[in-house]
Amino acid sequence: MAELTIRGTGVSEGIRSGKVLLYQPLRNQNLPGRAVISEEEVNHELERLQLAREKAYRELHALIERARIELGKDKAAILMAQQAFLNDPAFYPEMEKEIRQQKYTAEKAVTEVVERFAGLFEGMNDQYLRERSADVRDVGNRLVSCLQGKKGLQLAEIKEEVILVADDLAPSDTVQLNKKYILGFVTRVGGKTSHTAILSRSLGIPAIVGIGEAIKQIHDGDWLIIDGSTGACIVNPNPRLMKEYEEKRKIEEQALRQLEEFTFKPAATTDGFRVEMSANIGSPAEAKPALEQGAEGIGLYRTEFLFMNEAQMPSEEKQFEAYKQVVATMENRPVIIRTLDIGGDKELPYLSLPKEMNPFLGYRAIRLSLDQRELMVTQLRAILRASAYGKVKIMFPMIASLEEWRQAKAILAEVRDRLTKEGVDFDPSVEVGMMVEVPSTAILADQFAKEVDFFSIGTNDLVQYTLAVDRMNEKVGYLYDHLHPAVIHLVKKVIEASHREGKWTGMCGGMAGDPLAAPLLIGLGLDEWSMVAGSIKKVKQVISQVNHEECQKLLGEVLELSTTDDVRKRLEDFQKENNLTLSGNTGK
Amino acid sequence: MAELTIRGTGVSEGIRSGKVLLYQPLRNQNLPGRAVISEEEVNHELERLQLAREKAYRELHALIERARIELGKDKAAILMAQQAFLNDPAFYPEMEKEIRQQKYTAEKAVTEVVERFAGLFEGMNDQYLRERSADVRDVGNRLVSCLQGKKGLQLAEIKEEVILVADDLAPSDTVQLNKKYILGFVTRVGGKTSHTAILSRSLGIPAIVGIGEAIKQIHDGDWLIIDGSTGACIVNPNPRLMKEYEEKRKIEEQALRQLEEFTFKPAATTDGFRVEMSANIGSPAEAKPALEQGAEGIGLYRTEFLFMNEAQMPSEEKQFEAYKQVVATMENRPVIIRTLDIGGDKELPYLSLPKEMNPFLGYRAIRLSLDQRELMVTQLRAILRASAYGKVKIMFPMIASLEEWRQAKAILAEVRDRLTKEGVDFDPSVEVGMMVEVPSTAILADQFAKEVDFFSIGTNDLVQYTLAVDRMNEKVGYLYDHLHPAVIHLVKKVIEASHREGKWTGMCGGMAGDPLAAPLLIGLGLDEWSMVAGSIKKVKQVISQVNHEECQKLLGEVLELSTTDDVRKRLEDFQKENNLTLSGNTGK
Repeated sequence: MAELTIRGTGVSEGIRSGKVLLYQPLRNQNLPGRAVISEEEVNHELERLQLAREKAYRELHALIERARIELGKDKAAILMAQQAFLNDPAFYPEMEKEIRQQKYTAEKAVTEVVERFAGLFEGMNDQYLRERSADVRDVGNRLVSCLQGKKGLQLAEIKEEVILVADDLAPSDTVQLNKKYILGFVTRVGGKTSHTAILSRSLGIPAIVGIGEAIKQIHDGDWLIIDGSTGACIVNPNPRLMKEYEEKRKIEEQALRQLEEFTFKPAATTDGFRVEMSANIGSPAEAKPALEQGAEGIGLYRTEFLFMNEAQMPSEEKQFEAYKQVVATMENRPVIIRTLDIGGDKELPYLSLPKEMNPFLGYRAIRLSLDQRELMVTQLRAILRASAYGKVKIMFPMIASLEEWRQAKAILAEVRDRLTKEGVDFDPSVEVGMMVEVPSTAILADQFAKEVDFFSIGTNDLVQYTLAVDRMNEKVGYLYDHLHPAVIHLVKKVIEASHREGKWTGMCGGMAGDPLAAPLLIGLGLDEWSMVAGSIKKVKQVISQVNHEECQKLLGEVLELSTTDDVRKRLEDFQKENNLTLSGNTGK
Repeated sequence: MAELTIRGTGVSEGIRSGKVLLYQPLRNQNLPGRAVISEEEVNHELERLQLAREKAYRELHALIERARIELGKDKAAILMAQQAFLNDPAFYPEMEKEIRQQKYTAEKAVTEVVERFAGLFEGMNDQYLRERSADVRDVGNRLVSCLQGKKGLQLAEIKEEVILVADDLAPSDTVQLNKKYILGFVTRVGGKTSHTAILSRSLGIPAIVGIGEAIKQIHDGDWLIIDGSTGACIVNPNPRLMKEYEEKRKIEEQALRQLEEFTFKPAATTDGFRVEMSANIGSPAEAKPALEQGAEGIGLYRTEFLFMNEAQMPSEEKQFEAYKQVVATMENRPVIIRTLDIGGDKELPYLSLPKEMNPFLGYRAIRLSLDQRELMVTQLRAILRASAYGKVKIMFPMIASLEEWRQAKAILAEVRDRLTKEGVDFDPSVEVGMMVEVPSTAILADQFAKEVDFFSIGTNDLVQYTLAVDRMNEKVGYLYDHLHPAVIHLVKKVIEASHREGKWTGMCGGMAGDPLAAPLLIGLGLDEWSMVAGSIKKVKQVISQVNHEECQKLLGEVLELSTTDDVRKRLEDFQKENNLTLSGNTGK
């Protein structure tokens, strides 16, 4: 029980102190039991296997549903790939064959086929294929645990506050977590963009990753203090340290209470420059919590989740109900509904999409919608019908050329005509705008500004394309930064172009929710800011402390800078010069 | 023998008339022979299999070598993946097992394992994995043909002029072609960006793809007229038609003869504005042919082929010899050597590179070089040493931020210091520049221009990132166009920024070799134009017919346009207004 300090990479801020739960998934454990059966038992084993498969399928289905809502579609897609294995004609039927021909128990048949499959993948030169072996084994373990009537994984059963310590966390692990009981994460492997890192930040739970073999020094039931900003992890701390960290934690909590006060204040600078603060949501259920976090509107309603949650294309009626629910909840506050942004790496089971070499540069969003006209017409009808119940704005994603914009508008015009002829009610003054996330549209913003009602800058994709960096790729993650001078120049171009034409510009990417960037965006004159609801108060807090003119001066200086580091440093200095209180990414 | 006209998609221009060779690869044919052997024959079959494997490996190796030189690294990579299967521990050893345990002949063992493998891939939901089944079968067929002592595929044996008609052409087919005997291609499947289309354009052979089931109307030995611009394909034409097409063909040939006259003329407008015409090459062997096509220098020497042709990292000495050979061949004309542009989808067997979700947005080019310092130092030493033998310029690829540029320059400075200390000879005045292919660098061109000696705009990647379009992806290929207004704005920004600092800008992407774009690039004041050597005379022909001031006026008009179609139309009108002779993509 000696005190010990371990250092890893802090990937989600916040200080926590709590009991260790050492998590070892079933996949690391050995299976008991005999392997061979008699001829008479064959049918029994086949039946057991069949039931286990159905159970595993249902379990995965439930996990996918949860993952979509709580973790986002990327993680859901990983689980969907696992589900697909259960339907693979080379997988499950092979297990049945092993039972029939080799007289194996169902467990043995599963592990045999899984190992054959996984081994095959593992032996390949291609890293992508090699990694599929983990998915195969994950499915296999699920089947075995279903066969043995064991609960697949025990994470769902955590009912007391713990700090979860594990080798690594897989999506199928983490979707089961009840975040109420998780004080923090510590993992052996991983870096700033690993699954655990992204997950912990999105849940607002402090986390340290990559502590390496030091994990062996941590035991189940140990007491742990973790500091997600420094990466320090103290095992069985002495009372003095406990107290010290308790005080740090108190200061943090006090800052959080201060922050709470900004929730419902308007976002205005000290000299009265007022901007609109909105939330990004992915489902109707998120609208009310967004209001409670101080959102003045919905700046981005991602409709793709509605489509991903279904086994078939959601009907116009079903879409209408969902959109109407958001619009009604927001009670006449603006709701920007983005048309389907799917394709590339996000599949729909009922649309047969091609697998692409570079999905981020592929067949997605408006490219797909314009090509699958029926789908687009149905969605636009549902959105327009919902517009009768509040203040709807329509936004098209991934526009790269004026031709695409004009095509999208033409389809919308036809849908409006048709609804009018049918006597269906809708808001005829619905604003129609577009995402600016492809560099070409930012560069041609002057031309686009003449034809749109508004822009919304999607900084996540815009940074990705402007710097030619896949933000999910750890090897090049160092380049991905919305403070890169080129990105700032493009944002400026877009806002200015819109203002020249009397239009407005919003931002719904990560940059809008970054407190450090807020003074710069004030200087740029960004009109509408949309972010995860939890960040709204933090950004309001910053805005309320700055002066519009000072921010414009800051902008002028930043535009002269040539590197991301220089920009970051200048913004940090601005914070200090102005004594800005920034609650930052405090883990809440 | 009735005349018949079939229409497909013309993907490579030119009119040809010739005899049909209907090509059916071995993979569509059945295999004869018995399946089961006696215990005594096991060793014999194992030995046969072993020899066949070695033969197949060597065959693939030779194909890869040819593909690298003649077809480019993308196609070579496909063959390398096939070669990797032969080393896969789950592939070949499984065949040996089938012979030992099942007493199968080597042929039967191969087909069994191949089908198991291929079937497994085919059953998968993931399209990428599904497509691997074709590679597995291709390898299997090669093994079987090696076992049976048959020549793998008969394409290498074509010794008379034919029009090749096939279902589709795979890289392993086409690398064997002797282009001297191939008058044209006609395929059942495919579109503008299919493998056959890309290949035929790069070889300058007329081609029609996607003729569909009409292929059944074409028989071995039929006479065919094909027009690669209209997509018309006339089977067994009557004498009148034969004559008509013969005349069209004569006009085409006359135009080509006219064109030849421009080979060694300087590239200058009617009012004496002179630009430099260079060639892109991938190996020392291409330098002399480039000179013969009228190149005044090498605008882009892609060094990656030197690395891809080896089983291990090429030594400094080996690199030096290659670079020196190019420099010596060019006899004091400028040679721009680009440092290694590898990674992402281009693998090196001796570097373990991660498989990436979006390789075009990943760990490649300068990102990899800066990370693998040893590799970069060795290459820079070899390049600097070669600089003593002529006029070398060094160029870094994929620079996205000034930090990267400065890091690369710092490493170069260290290498120079070290060489100086060692007393090794090199040219101290070597110019150092960078590719502009990531949007961020074009946007920040003003900043970069202060620190570089020159820019070279890589339009292929620049278009790809600016429009967020993978140019290899057929589904979104319609968006990929270097005449997009946003691309033209970026090119203008780069050239102007360099001129303001007294530097120069080259271009080594497809736009430089597009005769339609030439008047625009003259208007933009592009200093150095680098392209496939075969295009040099075409572009010279256009430049020699235009007036610099007129081109600047044209540019002013184009900058006001907002769509790619508008730009293309304006350039076509300019051609007509000025009666420009454009030999275009005439199939030569």
